[in-house]
Amino acid sequence: MATIKVHGVPMSTATMRVLAALYEKDLQFELIPVDMRAGAHKQEPHLSLNPFGQIPALEDGDLSLFESRAITQYIAEEYSEKGEKLLCPGCKKVKATTNVWIQVEGQQFDPNASKLAFERVFKGMFGMTTDPAAVQELEGKLQKVLDIYEARLSKSDFLACDCFTLADLHHLPAIHYLMGTDSKVLFDSRPKVSEWVKKITARPAWAKVIDLQKQ
Amino acid sequence: MATIKVHGVPMSTATMRVLAALYEKDLQFELIPVDMRAGAHKQEPHLSLNPFGQIPALEDGDLSLFESRAITQYIAEEYSEKGEKLLCPGCKKVKATTNVWIQVEGQQFDPNASKLAFERVFKGMFGMTTDPAAVQELEGKLQKVLDIYEARLSKSDFLACDCFTLADLHHLPAIHYLMGTDSKVLFDSRPKVSEWVKKITARPAWAKVIDLQKQ
Repeated sequence: MATIKVHGVPMSTATMRVLAALYEKDLQFELIPVDMRAGAHKQEPHLSLNPFGQIPALEDGDLSLFESRAITQYIAEEYSEKGEKLLCPGCKKVKATTNVWIQVEGQQFDPNASKLAFERVFKGMFGMTTDPAAVQELEGKLQKVLDIYEARLSKSDFLACDCFTLADLHHLPAIHYLMGTDSKVLFDSRPKVSEWVKKITARPAWAKVIDLQKQ
Repeated sequence: MATIKVHGVPMSTATMRVLAALYEKDLQFELIPVDMRAGAHKQEPHLSLNPFGQIPALEDGDLSLFESRAITQYIAEEYSEKGEKLLCPGCKKVKATTNVWIQVEGQQFDPNASKLAFERVFKGMFGMTTDPAAVQELEGKLQKVLDIYEARLSKSDFLACDCFTLADLHHLPAIHYLMGTDSKVLFDSRPKVSEWVKKITARPAWAKVIDLQKQ
Protein backbone atom coordinates (compact mmCIF):
# COMPACT_ATOMS: atom_id res chain seq x y z
CA MET A 1 0.00 0.00 0.00
CA ALA A 2 1.40 3.35 -1.03
CA THR A 3 1.97 5.64 1.92
CA ILE A 4 3.94 8.26 -0.02
CA LYS A 5 1.77 10.91 -1.61
CA VAL A 6 3.04 13.50 -4.06
CA HIS A 7 0.82 16.51 -4.64
CA GLY A 8 1.75 18.02 -7.99
CA VAL A 9 1.51 17.72 -11.76
CA PRO A 10 3.89 15.80 -14.03
CA MET A 11 4.59 18.84 -16.27
CA SER A 12 6.05 20.84 -13.36
CA THR A 13 9.84 20.85 -13.17
CA ALA A 14 9.85 20.76 -9.37
CA THR A 15 7.37 17.86 -9.32
CA MET A 16 9.44 16.01 -11.94
CA ARG A 17 12.50 16.35 -9.71
CA VAL A 18 10.70 14.56 -6.89
CA LEU A 19 9.18 11.91 -9.17
CA ALA A 20 12.63 11.13 -10.60
CA ALA A 21 13.98 10.51 -7.10
CA LEU A 22 11.03 8.26 -6.20
CA TYR A 23 11.45 6.17 -9.36
CA GLU A 24 15.23 5.92 -8.83
CA LYS A 25 14.47 4.56 -5.38
CA ASP A 26 11.84 2.15 -6.71
CA LEU A 27 9.31 3.47 -4.23
CA GLN A 28 5.56 3.10 -4.51
CA PHE A 29 3.74 6.41 -4.40
CA GLU A 30 0.48 8.06 -5.27
CA LEU A 31 0.50 11.17 -7.47
CA ILE A 32 -2.35 13.44 -6.43
CA PRO A 33 -3.02 16.04 -9.13
CA VAL A 34 -3.31 19.69 -8.11
CA ASP A 35 -5.71 21.64 -10.32
CA MET A 36 -3.45 24.61 -11.06
CA ARG A 37 -5.89 26.15 -13.57
CA ALA A 38 -8.49 26.33 -10.82
CA GLY A 39 -5.88 27.81 -8.49
CA ALA A 40 -6.02 24.84 -6.11
CA HIS A 41 -2.35 25.39 -5.19
CA LYS A 42 -3.22 28.80 -3.72
CA GLN A 43 -6.05 27.43 -1.55
CA GLU A 44 -6.60 25.00 1.28
CA PRO A 45 -6.02 22.13 1.69
CA HIS A 46 -2.89 22.63 -0.44
CA LEU A 47 -1.64 25.65 1.53
CA SER A 48 -1.41 23.47 4.62
CA LEU A 49 0.97 21.22 2.69
CA ASN A 50 2.97 24.02 1.09
CA PRO A 51 2.44 27.50 2.59
CA PHE A 52 4.11 29.08 -0.46
CA GLY A 53 1.25 27.85 -2.65
CA GLN A 54 3.59 25.97 -4.94
CA ILE A 55 3.98 22.38 -6.04
CA PRO A 56 5.01 19.76 -5.16
CA ALA A 57 4.31 18.74 -1.60
CA LEU A 58 5.08 15.30 -0.21
CA GLU A 59 3.39 13.28 2.49
CA ASP A 60 5.04 10.21 3.94
CA GLY A 61 3.03 8.93 6.86
CA ASP A 62 2.66 11.88 9.23
CA LEU A 63 5.58 13.74 7.70
CA SER A 64 4.69 16.56 5.32
CA LEU A 65 7.38 18.34 3.27
CA PHE A 66 7.75 20.89 0.49
CA GLU A 67 10.63 22.38 -1.58
CA SER A 68 11.61 19.78 -4.17
CA ARG A 69 15.30 19.65 -3.24
CA ALA A 70 14.51 19.08 0.44
CA ILE A 71 12.11 16.31 -0.58
CA THR A 72 14.68 14.52 -2.75
CA GLN A 73 17.22 14.76 0.07
CA TYR A 74 14.72 13.19 2.45
CA ILE A 75 13.92 10.41 -0.02
CA ALA A 76 17.62 9.68 -0.60
CA GLU A 77 18.40 9.54 3.12
CA GLU A 78 15.26 7.89 4.47
CA TYR A 79 15.27 5.16 1.81
CA SER A 80 19.03 4.84 1.52
CA GLU A 81 18.80 1.05 1.25
CA LYS A 82 16.35 1.02 -1.66
CA GLY A 83 17.02 1.39 -5.39
CA GLU A 84 19.81 3.71 -6.54
CA LYS A 85 22.01 5.34 -3.92
CA LEU A 86 21.61 8.97 -5.14
CA LEU A 87 24.09 10.02 -2.44
CA CYS A 88 27.46 8.41 -2.95
CA PRO A 89 28.42 6.51 0.20
CA GLY A 90 31.94 7.88 0.03
CA CYS A 91 34.14 9.77 2.45
CA LYS A 92 33.30 13.15 4.01
CA LYS A 93 35.03 14.80 1.06
CA VAL A 94 32.61 13.21 -1.41
CA LYS A 95 29.64 14.09 0.77
CA ALA A 96 30.69 17.74 1.08
CA THR A 97 31.46 17.92 -2.65
CA THR A 98 28.02 16.50 -3.47
CA ASN A 99 26.50 19.28 -1.38
CA VAL A 100 28.56 21.83 -3.30
CA TRP A 101 27.15 20.65 -6.63
CA ILE A 102 23.62 20.38 -5.23
CA GLN A 103 23.99 24.06 -4.31
CA VAL A 104 25.48 24.88 -7.73
CA GLU A 105 22.34 23.50 -9.40
CA GLY A 106 20.07 25.49 -7.11
CA GLN A 107 22.01 28.76 -7.18
CA GLN A 108 23.86 28.91 -10.51
CA PHE A 109 22.19 26.59 -13.02
CA ASP A 110 18.50 26.64 -12.16
CA PRO A 111 17.91 30.41 -11.90
CA ASN A 112 19.03 30.72 -15.53
CA ALA A 113 17.81 27.39 -16.92
CA SER A 114 14.33 27.63 -15.41
CA LYS A 115 13.78 31.18 -16.65
CA LEU A 116 15.03 30.09 -20.08
CA ALA A 117 12.60 27.14 -20.11
CA PHE A 118 9.86 29.56 -19.10
CA GLU A 119 10.70 31.84 -22.04
CA ARG A 120 11.14 29.09 -24.61
CA VAL A 121 8.55 26.49 -23.53
CA PHE A 122 6.04 27.57 -20.89
CA LYS A 123 5.26 31.03 -22.28
CA GLY A 124 4.08 29.34 -25.49
CA MET A 125 1.91 26.90 -23.53
CA PHE A 126 0.26 29.81 -21.72
CA GLY A 127 -0.29 31.91 -24.86
CA MET A 128 2.45 34.38 -23.91
CA THR A 129 5.22 35.70 -26.18
CA THR A 130 8.89 34.77 -25.80
CA ASP A 131 11.15 37.77 -25.12
CA PRO A 132 14.22 37.40 -27.41
CA ALA A 133 16.33 39.79 -25.30
CA ALA A 134 15.63 37.72 -22.18
CA VAL A 135 16.52 34.53 -24.06
CA GLN A 136 19.81 36.04 -25.21
CA GLU A 137 20.74 37.22 -21.73
CA LEU A 138 19.81 33.91 -20.08
CA GLU A 139 21.64 31.87 -22.71
CA GLY A 140 24.74 34.01 -22.15
CA LYS A 141 24.62 33.31 -18.42
CA LEU A 142 23.87 29.62 -18.91
CA GLN A 143 26.81 29.22 -21.28
CA LYS A 144 29.18 30.46 -18.60
CA VAL A 145 27.76 27.93 -16.15
CA LEU A 146 28.04 25.14 -18.72
CA ASP A 147 31.67 26.03 -19.45
CA ILE A 148 32.39 25.30 -15.80
CA TYR A 149 30.39 22.06 -16.03
CA GLU A 150 32.43 21.05 -19.07
CA ALA A 151 35.65 21.45 -17.08
CA ARG A 152 34.18 19.64 -14.08
CA LEU A 153 32.87 16.72 -16.16
CA SER A 154 36.30 16.20 -17.68
CA LYS A 155 37.48 15.29 -14.17
CA SER A 156 34.63 13.04 -13.01
CA ASP A 157 31.85 11.10 -14.75
CA PHE A 158 29.13 12.99 -12.89
CA LEU A 159 29.10 16.36 -11.12
CA ALA A 160 29.84 15.24 -7.56
CA CYS A 161 31.95 12.15 -8.26
CA ASP A 162 31.93 9.14 -10.57
CA CYS A 163 28.44 8.16 -9.39
CA PHE A 164 25.05 9.55 -10.40
CA THR A 165 23.81 11.57 -7.41
CA LEU A 166 21.10 14.04 -6.50
CA ALA A 167 23.41 16.78 -7.83
CA ASP A 168 22.87 15.36 -11.34
CA LEU A 169 19.25 14.34 -10.88
CA HIS A 170 18.17 17.84 -9.88
CA HIS A 171 19.13 19.12 -13.34
CA LEU A 172 16.91 16.72 -15.28
CA PRO A 173 13.63 18.68 -15.49
CA ALA A 174 15.05 21.93 -16.89
CA ILE A 175 17.40 20.04 -19.23
CA HIS A 176 14.48 17.97 -20.50
CA TYR A 177 12.56 21.06 -21.54
CA LEU A 178 15.56 22.94 -22.95
CA MET A 179 16.63 19.96 -25.10
CA GLY A 180 13.38 20.42 -27.01
CA THR A 181 14.32 24.02 -27.92
CA ASP A 182 17.05 25.86 -29.83
CA SER A 183 18.94 26.12 -26.52
CA LYS A 184 19.83 22.44 -27.08
CA VAL A 185 22.97 23.62 -28.85
CA LEU A 186 24.37 24.99 -25.57
CA PHE A 187 24.49 21.43 -24.26
CA ASP A 188 25.35 19.66 -27.53
CA SER A 189 28.31 21.91 -28.32
CA ARG A 190 30.13 20.92 -25.14
CA PRO A 191 31.35 17.30 -25.48
CA LYS A 192 31.48 16.37 -21.79
CA VAL A 193 28.22 18.15 -20.98
CA SER A 194 26.58 16.50 -23.99
CA GLU A 195 27.74 13.05 -22.86
CA TRP A 196 26.48 13.76 -19.32
CA VAL A 197 23.09 14.92 -20.62
CA LYS A 198 22.78 11.71 -22.66
CA LYS A 199 23.65 9.56 -19.64
CA ILE A 200 21.31 11.21 -17.17
CA THR A 201 18.34 11.57 -19.52
CA ALA A 202 18.68 7.90 -20.57
CA ARG A 203 18.04 6.62 -17.06
CA PRO A 204 15.02 4.29 -16.87
CA ALA A 205 13.67 6.21 -13.87
CA TRP A 206 13.64 9.39 -15.95
CA ALA A 207 11.77 7.64 -18.77
CA LYS A 208 9.05 6.80 -16.24
CA VAL A 209 8.71 10.49 -15.33
CA ILE A 210 8.32 11.42 -19.00
CA ASP A 211 5.79 8.60 -19.46
CA LEU A 212 3.68 10.14 -16.70
CA GLN A 213 3.44 13.33 -18.76
CA LYS A 214 1.85 11.35 -21.59
CA GLN A 215 -0.98 9.93 -19.53
CA MET B 1 47.24 26.38 14.42
CA ALA B 2 44.40 27.36 12.15
CA THR B 3 43.86 24.83 9.40
CA ILE B 4 40.59 26.30 8.15
CA LYS B 5 41.06 29.02 5.55
CA VAL B 6 38.24 31.23 4.27
CA HIS B 7 38.91 33.12 1.07
CA GLY B 8 36.55 36.08 0.93
CA VAL B 9 35.76 39.54 2.24
CA PRO B 10 33.72 40.39 5.35
CA MET B 11 31.32 42.69 3.42
CA SER B 12 30.14 39.84 1.18
CA THR B 13 26.86 38.24 2.22
CA ALA B 14 28.00 34.77 1.19
CA THR B 15 31.27 35.15 3.09
CA MET B 16 29.38 36.45 6.15
CA ARG B 17 27.19 33.32 6.09
CA VAL B 18 30.28 31.12 6.37
CA LEU B 19 31.95 33.32 9.01
CA ALA B 20 28.79 33.20 11.14
CA ALA B 21 28.85 29.40 11.08
CA LEU B 22 32.54 29.29 12.01
CA TYR B 23 32.04 31.66 14.95
CA GLU B 24 28.96 29.73 16.13
CA LYS B 25 31.14 26.62 16.15
CA ASP B 26 33.97 28.41 17.97
CA LEU B 27 36.42 27.31 15.31
CA GLN B 28 39.79 28.90 14.62
CA PHE B 29 40.18 30.05 11.04
CA GLU B 30 42.19 32.36 8.85
CA LEU B 31 40.36 34.88 6.67
CA ILE B 32 42.32 35.40 3.47
CA PRO B 33 41.16 38.56 1.68
CA VAL B 34 40.36 38.36 -2.02
CA ASP B 35 41.09 41.62 -3.84
CA MET B 36 37.77 41.95 -5.68
CA ARG B 37 38.63 45.42 -7.06
CA ALA B 38 41.64 43.93 -8.80
CA GLY B 39 39.47 41.07 -10.06
CA ALA B 40 41.40 38.46 -8.09
CA HIS B 41 38.23 36.33 -7.79
CA LYS B 42 38.15 35.90 -11.58
CA GLN B 43 41.77 34.75 -11.79
CA GLU B 44 43.99 31.95 -10.57
CA PRO B 45 44.67 30.88 -7.91
CA HIS B 46 41.10 31.73 -6.82
CA LEU B 47 39.45 29.99 -9.78
CA SER B 48 40.96 26.71 -8.64
CA LEU B 49 39.15 27.18 -5.32
CA ASN B 50 35.87 28.38 -6.84
CA PRO B 51 35.47 27.80 -10.59
CA PHE B 52 32.52 30.22 -10.66
CA GLY B 53 34.86 33.08 -9.74
CA GLN B 54 32.85 33.98 -6.65
CA ILE B 55 33.54 34.21 -2.96
CA PRO B 56 33.84 32.57 -0.53
CA ALA B 57 35.88 29.41 -0.83
CA LEU B 58 36.89 27.27 2.12
CA GLU B 59 39.92 25.09 2.67
CA ASP B 60 40.04 22.62 5.53
CA GLY B 61 43.16 20.50 5.27
CA ASP B 62 43.04 18.98 1.78
CA LEU B 63 39.32 19.61 1.38
CA SER B 64 38.38 22.60 -0.76
CA LEU B 65 34.74 23.76 -1.00
CA PHE B 66 32.67 26.58 -2.41
CA GLU B 67 28.98 27.66 -2.33
CA SER B 68 28.33 29.21 1.08
CA ARG B 69 25.39 26.95 2.00
CA ALA B 70 27.37 23.79 1.22
CA ILE B 71 30.23 25.14 3.34
CA THR B 72 28.00 25.86 6.36
CA GLN B 73 26.48 22.36 6.05
CA TYR B 74 29.96 20.87 6.06
CA ILE B 75 31.00 22.95 9.08
CA ALA B 76 27.85 21.96 11.00
CA GLU B 77 28.29 18.24 10.27
CA GLU B 78 32.07 17.92 10.46
CA TYR B 79 32.30 19.87 13.72
CA SER B 80 29.02 18.68 15.21
CA GLU B 81 30.56 18.35 18.68
CA LYS B 82 31.88 21.92 18.82
CA GLY B 83 30.06 25.14 19.78
CA GLU B 84 26.42 25.52 18.81
CA LYS B 85 24.63 22.60 17.19
CA LEU B 86 23.26 24.47 14.13
CA LEU B 87 21.50 21.27 13.09
CA CYS B 88 18.97 20.19 15.68
CA PRO B 89 19.77 16.62 16.77
CA GLY B 90 16.09 15.69 16.60
CA CYS B 91 14.15 13.00 14.81
CA LYS B 92 14.08 12.49 11.04
CA LYS B 93 11.08 14.80 10.91
CA VAL B 94 13.08 17.69 12.38
CA LYS B 95 16.01 16.96 10.08
CA ALA B 96 13.80 16.92 6.97
CA THR B 97 11.97 20.07 8.11
CA THR B 98 15.29 21.86 8.65
CA ASN B 99 16.20 21.00 5.07
CA VAL B 100 12.86 22.41 3.89
CA TRP B 101 13.59 25.77 5.53
CA ILE B 102 17.20 25.77 4.35
CA GLN B 103 15.77 25.43 0.84
CA VAL B 104 13.16 28.12 1.51
CA GLU B 105 15.95 30.58 2.35
CA GLY B 106 17.87 29.68 -0.81
CA GLN B 107 14.93 29.58 -3.20
CA GLN B 108 12.26 31.96 -1.82
CA PHE B 109 13.88 34.46 0.54
CA ASP B 110 17.35 35.08 -0.83
CA PRO B 111 16.54 35.71 -4.52
CA ASN B 112 14.39 38.67 -3.41
CA ALA B 113 16.29 39.80 -0.32
CA SER B 114 19.72 39.77 -2.01
CA LYS B 115 18.49 41.71 -5.04
CA LEU B 116 16.81 44.20 -2.68
CA ALA B 117 20.04 44.61 -0.69
CA PHE B 118 21.85 45.13 -3.99
CA GLU B 119 19.41 47.89 -4.97
CA ARG B 120 19.31 49.59 -1.58
CA VAL B 121 22.87 49.13 -0.28
CA PHE B 122 25.44 47.87 -2.76
CA LYS B 123 24.43 50.03 -5.73
CA GLY B 124 25.17 53.09 -3.59
CA MET B 125 28.56 51.68 -2.57
CA PHE B 126 29.43 51.15 -6.24
CA GLY B 127 28.22 54.58 -7.37
CA MET B 128 25.17 53.14 -9.13
CA THR B 129 21.59 54.40 -8.86
CA THR B 130 18.82 52.52 -7.06
CA ASP B 131 15.90 51.56 -9.32
CA PRO B 132 12.68 52.44 -7.44
CA ALA B 133 10.54 50.12 -9.61
CA ALA B 134 12.82 47.19 -8.85
CA VAL B 135 12.68 48.02 -5.13
CA GLN B 136 8.90 48.09 -5.22
CA GLU B 137 8.65 44.76 -7.04
CA LEU B 138 11.19 43.06 -4.77
CA GLU B 139 9.57 44.40 -1.61
CA GLY B 140 6.21 43.11 -2.83
CA LYS B 141 7.67 39.63 -3.31
CA LEU B 142 9.55 39.72 -0.03
CA GLN B 143 6.42 40.73 1.88
CA LYS B 144 4.66 37.60 0.66
CA VAL B 145 7.56 35.47 1.84
CA LEU B 146 7.61 37.24 5.21
CA ASP B 147 3.86 36.69 5.66
CA ILE B 148 4.56 32.97 5.49
CA TYR B 149 7.47 33.36 7.92
CA GLU B 150 5.16 35.21 10.33
CA ALA B 151 2.76 32.25 10.33
CA ARG B 152 5.61 29.76 10.65
CA LEU B 153 7.24 31.64 13.55
CA SER B 154 3.98 31.64 15.47
CA LYS B 155 4.31 27.84 15.60
CA SER B 156 8.00 27.46 16.49
CA ASP B 157 10.67 29.77 17.97
CA PHE B 158 12.88 29.41 14.91
CA LEU B 159 12.17 28.39 11.32
CA ALA B 160 12.96 24.69 11.52
CA CYS B 161 12.05 23.99 15.14
CA ASP B 162 12.54 25.59 18.56
CA CYS B 163 16.32 25.66 18.09
CA PHE B 164 18.49 28.08 16.14
CA THR B 165 19.70 26.17 13.06
CA LEU B 166 21.43 26.78 9.75
CA ALA B 167 17.99 27.60 8.33
CA ASP B 168 17.96 30.75 10.47
CA LEU B 169 21.66 31.52 10.23
CA HIS B 170 21.60 31.59 6.42
CA HIS B 171 19.26 34.62 6.56
CA LEU B 172 21.57 36.81 8.65
CA PRO B 173 23.66 38.58 5.98
CA ALA B 174 20.77 39.87 3.84
CA ILE B 175 18.73 40.80 6.93
CA HIS B 176 21.70 42.70 8.35
CA TYR B 177 21.94 44.90 5.26
CA LEU B 178 18.19 45.38 4.83
CA MET B 179 17.73 46.42 8.49
CA GLY B 180 19.88 49.46 7.68
CA THR B 181 17.44 50.57 4.93
CA ASP B 182 13.79 51.59 4.60
CA SER B 183 12.99 47.91 3.95
CA LYS B 184 13.42 47.46 7.72
CA VAL B 185 9.68 48.10 8.08
CA LEU B 186 8.91 44.83 6.28
CA PHE B 187 10.51 42.97 9.19
CA ASP B 188 9.47 45.33 12.01
CA SER B 189 5.78 45.32 11.04
CA ARG B 190 5.48 41.56 11.54
CA PRO B 191 5.67 40.81 15.31
CA LYS B 192 6.96 37.22 15.10
CA VAL B 193 9.40 38.03 12.30
CA SER B 194 10.60 41.09 14.21
CA GLU B 195 11.19 39.03 17.36
CA TRP B 196 13.05 36.41 15.31
CA VAL B 197 15.24 39.06 13.65
CA LYS B 198 16.12 40.49 17.08
CA LYS B 199 17.04 37.03 18.41
CA ILE B 200 19.20 35.94 15.50
CA THR B 201 21.00 39.27 15.00
CA ALA B 202 21.77 39.46 18.75
CA ARG B 203 23.81 36.28 18.71
CA PRO B 204 27.41 36.83 19.90
CA ALA B 205 28.75 34.93 16.88
CA TRP B 206 26.99 37.39 14.58
CA ALA B 207 28.46 40.36 16.46
CA LYS B 208 31.89 38.92 15.69
CA VAL B 209 31.09 38.85 11.96
CA ILE B 210 30.02 42.51 12.07
CA ASP B 211 33.17 43.39 14.04
CA LEU B 212 35.25 41.93 11.23
CA GLN B 213 33.67 44.45 8.85
CA LYS B 214 34.97 47.28 11.00
CA GLN B 215 38.60 46.20 10.90
